[in-house]
Amino acid sequence: MRRWFIIWAVVLAPMLGWAQDLAAAVPAAGAGGPVFTQELADLLRDNRIALDTVWVLFTAFLVFFMNLGFAMVESGLCRAKNTVNILAKNFIVFAISSIAFWVMGWGLMFGDGNGFLGLSGLFFAAGADNSPAVGTAYQGVYGALNWTGVPFWAKFLFQLVFAGTAATIVSGAVAERIKFVSFIVFSFLLVGVMYPVTGHWVWGGGWLQQLGLWDFAGSTTVHSVGGWAALAGVLLLGPRLGKYRADGTVRPIYGHNMSMTALGVLVLWFGWFGFNPGSTMAANFNDIARIAVTTNTAAAAATLSATVVAWRLLGKPDLSMILNGCLAGLVAITAPCAYVSVGAAAVIGLVAGTLVVLAVLFFDKLRIDDPVGALSVHLVNGVFGTLAVGLFAQDAIMPATTGNGLFYGGGLELLARQALGVAAVGAFTFTLALAAWALIRATLGLRVSRDEELGGLDMGEHGMEAYPDFQGFLTK
Amino acid sequence: MRRWFIIWAVVLAPMLGWAQDLAAAVPAAGAGGPVFTQELADLLRDNRIALDTVWVLFTAFLVFFMNLGFAMVESGLCRAKNTVNILAKNFIVFAISSIAFWVMGWGLMFGDGNGFLGLSGLFFAAGADNSPAVGTAYQGVYGALNWTGVPFWAKFLFQLVFAGTAATIVSGAVAERIKFVSFIVFSFLLVGVMYPVTGHWVWGGGWLQQLGLWDFAGSTTVHSVGGWAALAGVLLLGPRLGKYRADGTVRPIYGHNMSMTALGVLVLWFGWFGFNPGSTMAANFNDIARIAVTTNTAAAAATLSATVVAWRLLGKPDLSMILNGCLAGLVAITAPCAYVSVGAAAVIGLVAGTLVVLAVLFFDKLRIDDPVGALSVHLVNGVFGTLAVGLFAQDAIMPATTGNGLFYGGGLELLARQALGVAAVGAFTFTLALAAWALIRATLGLRVSRDEELGGLDMGEHGMEAYPDFQGFLTK
Amino acid sequence: MRRWFIIWAVVLAPMLGWAQDLAAAVPAAGAGGPVFTQELADLLRDNRIALDTVWVLFTAFLVFFMNLGFAMVESGLCRAKNTVNILAKNFIVFAISSIAFWVMGWGLMFGDGNGFLGLSGLFFAAGADNSPAVGTAYQGVYGALNWTGVPFWAKFLFQLVFAGTAATIVSGAVAERIKFVSFIVFSFLLVGVMYPVTGHWVWGGGWLQQLGLWDFAGSTTVHSVGGWAALAGVLLLGPRLGKYRADGTVRPIYGHNMSMTALGVLVLWFGWFGFNPGSTMAANFNDIARIAVTTNTAAAAATLSATVVAWRLLGKPDLSMILNGCLAGLVAITAPCAYVSVGAAAVIGLVAGTLVVLAVLFFDKLRIDDPVGALSVHLVNGVFGTLAVGLFAQDAIMPATTGNGLFYGGGLELLARQALGVAAVGAFTFTLALAAWALIRATLGLRVSRDEELGGLDMGEHGMEAYPDFQGFLTK
Repeated sequence: MRRWFIIWAVVLAPMLGWAQDLAAAVPAAGAGGPVFTQELADLLRDNRIALDTVWVLFTAFLVFFMNLGFAMVESGLCRAKNTVNILAKNFIVFAISSIAFWVMGWGLMFGDGNGFLGLSGLFFAAGADNSPAVGTAYQGVYGALNWTGVPFWAKFLFQLVFAGTAATIVSGAVAERIKFVSFIVFSFLLVGVMYPVTGHWVWGGGWLQQLGLWDFAGSTTVHSVGGWAALAGVLLLGPRLGKYRADGTVRPIYGHNMSMTALGVLVLWFGWFGFNPGSTMAANFNDIARIAVTTNTAAAAATLSATVVAWRLLGKPDLSMILNGCLAGLVAITAPCAYVSVGAAAVIGLVAGTLVVLAVLFFDKLRIDDPVGALSVHLVNGVFGTLAVGLFAQDAIMPATTGNGLFYGGGLELLARQALGVAAVGAFTFTLALAAWALIRATLGLRVSRDEELGGLDMGEHGMEAYPDFQGFLTK
Repeated sequence: MRRWFIIWAVVLAPMLGWAQDLAAAVPAAGAGGPVFTQELADLLRDNRIALDTVWVLFTAFLVFFMNLGFAMVESGLCRAKNTVNILAKNFIVFAISSIAFWVMGWGLMFGDGNGFLGLSGLFFAAGADNSPAVGTAYQGVYGALNWTGVPFWAKFLFQLVFAGTAATIVSGAVAERIKFVSFIVFSFLLVGVMYPVTGHWVWGGGWLQQLGLWDFAGSTTVHSVGGWAALAGVLLLGPRLGKYRADGTVRPIYGHNMSMTALGVLVLWFGWFGFNPGSTMAANFNDIARIAVTTNTAAAAATLSATVVAWRLLGKPDLSMILNGCLAGLVAITAPCAYVSVGAAAVIGLVAGTLVVLAVLFFDKLRIDDPVGALSVHLVNGVFGTLAVGLFAQDAIMPATTGNGLFYGGGLELLARQALGVAAVGAFTFTLALAAWALIRATLGLRVSRDEELGGLDMGEHGMEAYPDFQGFLTK
Repeated sequence: MRRWFIIWAVVLAPMLGWAQDLAAAVPAAGAGGPVFTQELADLLRDNRIALDTVWVLFTAFLVFFMNLGFAMVESGLCRAKNTVNILAKNFIVFAISSIAFWVMGWGLMFGDGNGFLGLSGLFFAAGADNSPAVGTAYQGVYGALNWTGVPFWAKFLFQLVFAGTAATIVSGAVAERIKFVSFIVFSFLLVGVMYPVTGHWVWGGGWLQQLGLWDFAGSTTVHSVGGWAALAGVLLLGPRLGKYRADGTVRPIYGHNMSMTALGVLVLWFGWFGFNPGSTMAANFNDIARIAVTTNTAAAAATLSATVVAWRLLGKPDLSMILNGCLAGLVAITAPCAYVSVGAAAVIGLVAGTLVVLAVLFFDKLRIDDPVGALSVHLVNGVFGTLAVGLFAQDAIMPATTGNGLFYGGGLELLARQALGVAAVGAFTFTLALAAWALIRATLGLRVSRDEELGGLDMGEHGMEAYPDFQGFLTK
């Protein structure tokens, strides 16, 4: 961030100078060659802006690609008879997010306003903005992002793909029973209103950011928000038919295609290299390289610990546990990725992989039916990851940000702030989501009919099957 | 483009200076530090070239990856018994394209020549070239691309993956009945001859470029060319057996794997972030960020409009319509992506999503059998997208290019030029493709035998099945 | 590499200057604008470091993504009943590699030591290091990589994903019969010990590097190492039950999902654009563009030659041969990609595509059962590719590296060195791998029980099925 101020102090240039005709400004070549001029300073600055833009777009594309990962994980872990519906949900949710965030979410989240809400540039991302100007040179209504020197639309796209992720998380938890139209309406509300408000608190200059909550890439802001919204929906929807038997036992419902599930998790791991390192929103070389390694290490460690724990508790290394272990590690390292050492990342991963296995078993105990484990992955580990900042952060790793966490002599203060952030965002999102789900239930209805659920949402909601050439998959 | 001339005017350096030993040229450090020298100017220029090269390669790789998207969409939308054949076609078509474009396509398209044809550097991309020199410093036979300051092989690769896309489009329309060898031969002709000629007209300095046709990333040059070539093939091939019944009704033939289809479309959406923003062929930061957002917005809007239109016309939100809606939006925004606002992109998307649903129904009315909807997506929306430039372009968005379109006070002139381009490219490609298909039919034959078509091309053409462990998919 | 020394000679800056507060150093603006100062030189250097870091990370992510390709190729080419096991193996192998390479592999490979072994910074990548300092400014214990000016963790991640690739190669050859736990243990030993030792010889400053072995991106260092380790395992494991009949005939065992296989190969082709061009470990624009094209051309040519050869030998264009042909071309061009012309790359590809078909038939003749053709792809073509440097290298393409190969007037000397490298790495890896496999066999056991193999490893090792909704795949 500081680098950008320096570049700007040096060049003092009007922001759109790069587009004006500089040909007349070629420096006269003296005996020792051309002297350094304003124009060359502009070129230097433009190269830097261009590099940062390439980085932000590249990582935004990777995060966009996570939509594929979510679609494959969810459909793979559910039954064949609901595949078309799940694919349609995952597909349309990003289309809805793209429109909702543009129409109003962006302004609510990043528009200048008060500590609770953005109030400027509310509609169609149309507020004043002279990005890529930074710091005091920035003039516009999206001041909370004036620390990154990339063009406006690069900022917008990067934040949009994050908003889309939050909505996608919900999809898995409510799968195999929710009405298509109801899911669409909820997604619009989540991305257009709920996510932007808490996002404003943490990343848009709001009260939690001012208080000093550190959530680098969104364990809370993205993942636990998705998780809380999903939990509210699951509670109102109830479990899938036949999942919990009258005698108290749980009927396992297996995913219909583990190849697709594994594919999805590998795509998500790949996409997370955009999610976390890209949250620098500038090509700060030491940070992006280190964050890529903490992210990967946490994922690897969580994969291994989930494997071991599942092996011990369940008798065999269950593949869905291995895969969810990996995702748990990725969610948990999302908040602390920039502030912790690689060794701490490994520890965070080991804990996350353990937590996710226990959480899956725990939610089944509570008869909370989450077909893909979205709550165990995104909610539980989103909370844990945010708290992990309070435990493992080191001041020396990213100076002038978190300070030291509990394990590095920083005391309980950072941990307390992180916990407050978790609680505030959770309480707000859960309450609003519950209200939204209840409203939708009262109007459109939430759940498909019993017959449709038994026969499959593919025929019921969409009138088609995912695999019509394959007969005999009537293990419904 | 202008930026590059400035950099060159400033540095006045021999193009290969970057490779010479600059160590002797380290400036003497005075009291105030080293003065600006030629060598430092060279470093500045080299950094810019390197950045642009990274951008062009990165986006070229994304466009390459679209081959996966096309392969999955086509095989997913066809029947299981033809899957091996479809995968083989999609795989080998890029191999053929890579060789054909190298052997002759590149020279025909970008070699200096006349308004109709490149005539220099015709074979093996072996003409003189001192890229990354630009503008008047460029010395070589590929002058039409001298506005981008990236190395020769970066230009070549980027254009190669575009050529491959055009050939892949054909594959879907002729699926489930074409002979493998005949498709290979046609692909070679398309990429080696047909595509490069019209490509020369629009992007290689030819008559349409001189006239002022604006097709930023190829709605016409790539997508409608693929579409016209496909239409010619479909007309000569005829429909699949059983598709159109004697009583006038249409038998729906469902795709065998909607998971793969959805995967393919998400990969294509991802790849389009290379296709459109990469067509800057330089990391122009404002352009690439804005183009990424116009592209995404059009795709999202088209997904939604196709969903709504299909829901109304067909009674349910058909997944294949949702997916083709997305692709239609992407194709339509390809020509105008750089010249229109985000709001206009949304409108273009809404129209494209509507058009594709209507077109699918329309082609079935005409008994033109296109298993994957390639004509509705690439031809219809390729044409629409090109015309949309004439409607929605704004001079202020990319000055000194299109000027204003009809809806922004520019009158009909730009629209007329766009229409002329569409017609000229279409007439040429359709005629040549018809001749090529007819020639192939007369020699190698176009269509597999009736028995092979009924039994599946997998056993007939390749002697293997795609899913041998799964029995019962005999809904043939 | 030379460029970096120049940048450093020019700027003479303490390495961590980028982090200090430069605001005070803004140059005074004279009549002609600000003069060139140390601080601006620092900005210039930082931009270059940032660009190289973006390139290295981007390509590392692509190589990471190859894990998906390997997982899909292997599971697609094997039977449905072993799919969960294969996915689990492919998934966990990268997790294991990430930990093993961090814990010890990295230090053994790149730590300063003697010609045979790294002896510094052995554990947890914790040795002294002031990257991105380069050349004589570098101070640390990983001197072998001091030619690239990227941060330490970028170097680490890039090398880590390469190490993971070597381990993944083994997985395919031992598929459908190996015990899960035994594969995990072997992978740890391979990535933690075996791969790093030979890697030290070739890339870590060891004796083969000093001798002048040129293996740009690892035909030998990665691919043939994986191949030799796999061969040792296959010999101890023996063939799958029923593969070779008592009467001397071979029973073809078909892959259960060719869609996934094709998907995997396209992902690998995509990932190879990271593997080869990324091995520059800096955004050297001419090199990375040319390497991308040699890589693509070899893959395309090999695809075509494998198609033709398989068509002639087997009567039909077998899809698995087409796909393995592509991979063969990619493996073969990996060593020479930077040193040969595009034309030579095409020839190398043509040979590789032919070799792989013959090798598949040859290994079946020898009754060496390799379910996915990993030996034919990675071992045979890893060896061929390394030797191809000795045949096709041209001094003019990358001066001061290989010199000319045999076909360009360089005589046999380079070829002899390449052959020596192949033999030395092969002998060492095969011997150690054989010992490791034997040790594992004596302790944990190598092979699942006969009943488990017949019933499928999915139920036996993991207690679940990959496709529970689909019945009838009992072609076991």
